[in-house]
Amino acid sequence: MQMDERGKIGRDASILLAATDGKTRNAGLLAIARGLEANAAAIITANNEDMKRSQTENLGAPLLKRLTFDADKINDVIKGIYSLTELNNPLGVTKLSTHLDKGLDLYKVTCPIGVIGVIFESRPDAFIQIATLCLKSGNSVLLKGGREALETNRILCRVIQEATAAAGIPQGWIQNLESREEVTAMLALDQYIDLIIPRGSNDFVKYIMANSTIPVMGHADGICHVYVHDDADLKQAVDIIVDSKTQYVAACNTLETLLINEKIAVSLLPILKVALENKGVLIKGDEGVRKIISAETATEEDWKTEYLDYILAIRLVPSMDAAIDHINTYGSGHTDVILSADKDFVNTFMTLVDSACVFWNCSTRFSDGFRFGFGAEVGISTSKLHARGPVGLDGLLSYKYKLVGHGQCVIDYANGSRKFRHEPNQLDFHL
Amino acid sequence: MQMDERGKIGRDASILLAATDGKTRNAGLLAIARGLEANAAAIITANNEDMKRSQTENLGAPLLKRLTFDADKINDVIKGIYSLTELNNPLGVTKLSTHLDKGLDLYKVTCPIGVIGVIFESRPDAFIQIATLCLKSGNSVLLKGGREALETNRILCRVIQEATAAAGIPQGWIQNLESREEVTAMLALDQYIDLIIPRGSNDFVKYIMANSTIPVMGHADGICHVYVHDDADLKQAVDIIVDSKTQYVAACNTLETLLINEKIAVSLLPILKVALENKGVLIKGDEGVRKIISAETATEEDWKTEYLDYILAIRLVPSMDAAIDHINTYGSGHTDVILSADKDFVNTFMTLVDSACVFWNCSTRFSDGFRFGFGAEVGISTSKLHARGPVGLDGLLSYKYKLVGHGQCVIDYANGSRKFRHEPNQLDFHL
Repeated sequence: MQMDERGKIGRDASILLAATDGKTRNAGLLAIARGLEANAAAIITANNEDMKRSQTENLGAPLLKRLTFDADKINDVIKGIYSLTELNNPLGVTKLSTHLDKGLDLYKVTCPIGVIGVIFESRPDAFIQIATLCLKSGNSVLLKGGREALETNRILCRVIQEATAAAGIPQGWIQNLESREEVTAMLALDQYIDLIIPRGSNDFVKYIMANSTIPVMGHADGICHVYVHDDADLKQAVDIIVDSKTQYVAACNTLETLLINEKIAVSLLPILKVALENKGVLIKGDEGVRKIISAETATEEDWKTEYLDYILAIRLVPSMDAAIDHINTYGSGHTDVILSADKDFVNTFMTLVDSACVFWNCSTRFSDGFRFGFGAEVGISTSKLHARGPVGLDGLLSYKYKLVGHGQCVIDYANGSRKFRHEPNQLDFHL
Repeated sequence: MQMDERGKIGRDASILLAATDGKTRNAGLLAIARGLEANAAAIITANNEDMKRSQTENLGAPLLKRLTFDADKINDVIKGIYSLTELNNPLGVTKLSTHLDKGLDLYKVTCPIGVIGVIFESRPDAFIQIATLCLKSGNSVLLKGGREALETNRILCRVIQEATAAAGIPQGWIQNLESREEVTAMLALDQYIDLIIPRGSNDFVKYIMANSTIPVMGHADGICHVYVHDDADLKQAVDIIVDSKTQYVAACNTLETLLINEKIAVSLLPILKVALENKGVLIKGDEGVRKIISAETATEEDWKTEYLDYILAIRLVPSMDAAIDHINTYGSGHTDVILSADKDFVNTFMTLVDSACVFWNCSTRFSDGFRFGFGAEVGISTSKLHARGPVGLDGLLSYKYKLVGHGQCVIDYANGSRKFRHEPNQLDFHL
C-alpha cells in the first residue's frame, strides 16, 4: 500500500477514535494487555529470530540487551498498561468556559492531536508504550521501530490490531512501518499526519527535523550542565556530579559540562577527580582546571559536545552570571542544575537559565517523565512550543473551542445592540 | 546592523525580560500609553506622510482606511493598553506541583517563549497591540509591518523603546524591521527566534510557512462551513448564514461553503437566495441547488476556495455524516457551524469535525479572540500543536520545570533504596 493511502487510513481512523469514550479506549488497552499475555510465546519466538539475526550481524551487547523482549519485559509492559488504564480520561476535559452572553457559552475542550508518526529505537517495549499512550489519548499512530526488531514489532502490531479491533477501537488507528522509504514518504504527509516524534541518536533526530514538513517534537542535543556555586556543600556536590555523569552515561539528561565557581575549585576538584576516576570518567579541563588537577585540555568545541560517554568537560567560571551565560550560549535548553545554599542566587539562576528543566541541589538524571510522575513518557522536548521538557500524555493532546448559541449573529454586537458579558463559567461542557 | 546581530540582541533582552516582575512590565505598558499620548501629534504627522505617499501610489480605499492612525485610533490603542495592565501577570504561574519524595518537589511554572517575530499587515494599531501583548507576556519581539506604514511604525517603535527603557524594561526587547531582506534573514535565525507569527494574505502566510526554519503560528486558509441540518429553524438559519457570509467579507472566519441537508433545501434555498442577494452575494451551487434556485455552477474547485468576497458556494448533502466528511476533506480546520435542534446530532458533529472552532446555532464570525473574551488576539491558529483557534496571551507562553532538591541522586531510586511518592502538591513555586 502507498504511504499516502496509509496516511489517509490513519487520519480517517483518528476522526472516529476521537469520538470514542474513555471506557472504550480503556477496554482497548485491557484487550492489548490480554493479547500480549495470550501471545507471549509467539512474541518471544519472533524476538528470538530478531536476536539471532542481530547476533550474526554482530550487533553490540548493549543494543542486544535493549532488543531482548522476554517474559519479564512482557510482564513489565503489561503492568504499564494497567497503570495507564488507571489514569483519568485525558479527552473531553473542559479547560476554560466563558459565558459570552445570554445563551452563548464558550468551552475549550481537550481532544486528541490526530495522527502521530513515531520513529524509535530498537526497544520492542517502546512499541507498546507509544502505542498505548496514543490509544489512551485517542490518537492514531504510525510506528517505525529499529530494523533489528522487525519480527518482534510485526507481531506486536498484529496482536494490538486484533485486540483493539475486537474491543471496538476503529481499525487503522495503528500501523507498523518497516522500511526507511516509508519513513521518508511519511515525513511529507502533512495533510494527514499532525506530529512526528523521533527518538534515537542526535544525528538521526536532526535529520528528521531537517526533512519533515510536519512539526517535530523532541530534542536533538542534550548538553546538560551542573554549576557549582562557591557556597555549595562539597560532599553533596561530588555525589550529584557523579550521579549526573555516570548513573546512565548514554542518556540525554546526562551531565556533559561541569561549571565550577573559581572560589570553590581548589577544594572541590581534587576530591571530585578521585570520585570520577573511580567510575572511569575521563576529565577534560580548561586552563584554570588544569592548574589544580591534571586533565586533558578542553576547548570551545567541548562546550558544544554531547559525549554520551565517560567523559566530562569542566570549566571554571568567575561568577554565577558567567555560568548562566555559558549555559545559555552552549547548552541545548534541556536540563541544568545549580548547587548552592543561597535561595536568592538559585532563584535568579532558575529564572535566567532558558532551559526546559532547571534544578536545585539534585541530579540532572531526574529529568524524565517517569521520575516526574507522568506515568509514562513520550519523549523529552527542547522546543518551547507545545510541550517542553519530559512529555507525558498531555503532550499528545490538543483542544477545540465549542461555542453553543441560540441564533446569535455578530452584527448585533458590532452595531452595539448587544454587549458581551465575558463572565467565567464554572460548568463543564455539556449540551 | 546585520540581522543575526539583531536576533542576538533580541535573545539577550528576552533572558532579562523573562526575569522582570509583573509590576515592572505593567509599568512599561503604562509608560507606552503615556508615550503615545505625549507623542500623538508627531505620530499623526508621520502617519499623514504614509497616507500621502500611499495615495500617490494609488493604494485602494479599504487599505487606506486601515492605514489611517488618527487621534481616535490612538485613544483606542491606549484604552487597550490600560485593559492589558488589568489582566493577571501570566508569568510565574505554577501549573503543576508534585511532591516527588521527601525534600524533592517539582514545579511546572509558566515563562515567556523568548523571541517572537511578527510580520503583519498595514495597520499601525496592530504594531501597538502586538508589542504590548509581547511585553505583558515577557517576550522580545521583532516586528515587520506593511511597507505603507513605514513612517508610522518607525515613530511608534521609537516611542515604545524610549518609554519602556525609562520604565526599566531591558533595551533591545523590541525592534522594528523595515525591509523584506530583513524578513528573509529573520526566517533563518532559529538559534535566536522561537516563533514566527505571520498575519496577512493566505499566499503570504503560505510563503512564510514554507520558508521558515522557525515554528510558525497562524493559518493559511480559512475555509469555514455552515451545515444546515434538516431540523434547523429556517429564519435563524437565514440570519446566521447572512451574518457569517457578509458581516465582514474579507475575514478568515467568514463563511465560504454552505452545506444544506437535502431534506430542508426546498424550504430554505428560495428565502436564503433573496436574503443573500439583498446583500450582494453571488451564489454558486451544485446540481441539487440549481434544481431549486438559479445559481452559477459550483465545482470541486469551489469547495477548496476561500473567496474572501461576496460569493458563497452551496452544496446539498444527504446527511450530517456527508457534511462532516465534506468539512474534514475540504475545510481548513478553522471554524465550522451546525444549525440544528437535535443535541445528539450536534454533539456528534462537534466531536467529529476536526476544526479549531465548532459552533452550534451561531455565526462563524464569533471565532475571534476579542469576542471569545481573551482581551487581545495574537492571531488565529489552525495548527493542532501549541495554540489552536483564536490565540490570546496564553499562546505567547511556555513553561519550565523547576525541581528543588536536597542532594538527591537517581542511583538511590534506581537501586530501590528510595522510592518516589509522586503526590500532588497544592503549593505554588517558592524557594
